[in-house]
Amino acid sequence: MIFVIVSSCSVVKQREELLKALGIKIKEARIAKGLSHVQLASEADIAVSQVWRIETGKVNVTVVTLYAIADALDVSIYELLDSSRRGI
Amino acid sequence: MIFVIVSSCSVVKQREELLKALGIKIKEARIAKGLSHVQLASEADIAVSQVWRIETGKVNVTVVTLYAIADALDVSIYELLDSSRRGI
Repeated sequence: MIFVIVSSCSVVKQREELLKALGIKIKEARIAKGLSHVQLASEADIAVSQVWRIETGKVNVTVVTLYAIADALDVSIYELLDSSRRGI
Repeated sequence: MIFVIVSSCSVVKQREELLKALGIKIKEARIAKGLSHVQLASEADIAVSQVWRIETGKVNVTVVTLYAIADALDVSIYELLDSSRRGI
């Protein structure tokens, strides 16, 4: 039973790290472009609260939203993702 | 009013195209790796029905699932996404 608990904890932890890393990249790109949360939300057509939650790694972002954010930030979607990161 | 209807139709269409294109790339990579739907589902820890729906562009895949699929297919997440595609 312990193995199951340990392995599912590490999955949760990896997932949190993945989403936090993505949130940091989005925040950095937003600041580099000089956009506020409100401006990014408007450009990407998502709620401002969603931008906050994405940037703090609290949201498992969908691919459509990710493309919209990349477009609003004028970056390639590749710049927001880490190709070396393995799945969970 | 017409403009609103027309523009929202094109957004829906773009979204469908984006998800269809992603589904095709995942299917191609799965076949290239010689995995069945069941094997990919098991490796990526998602439901078999989910694999079907993702490959037919019916699911707005989340980033965590996308990393898990890329890992299961032994490809970089970049290979499943189109960097030139603009957001919706």
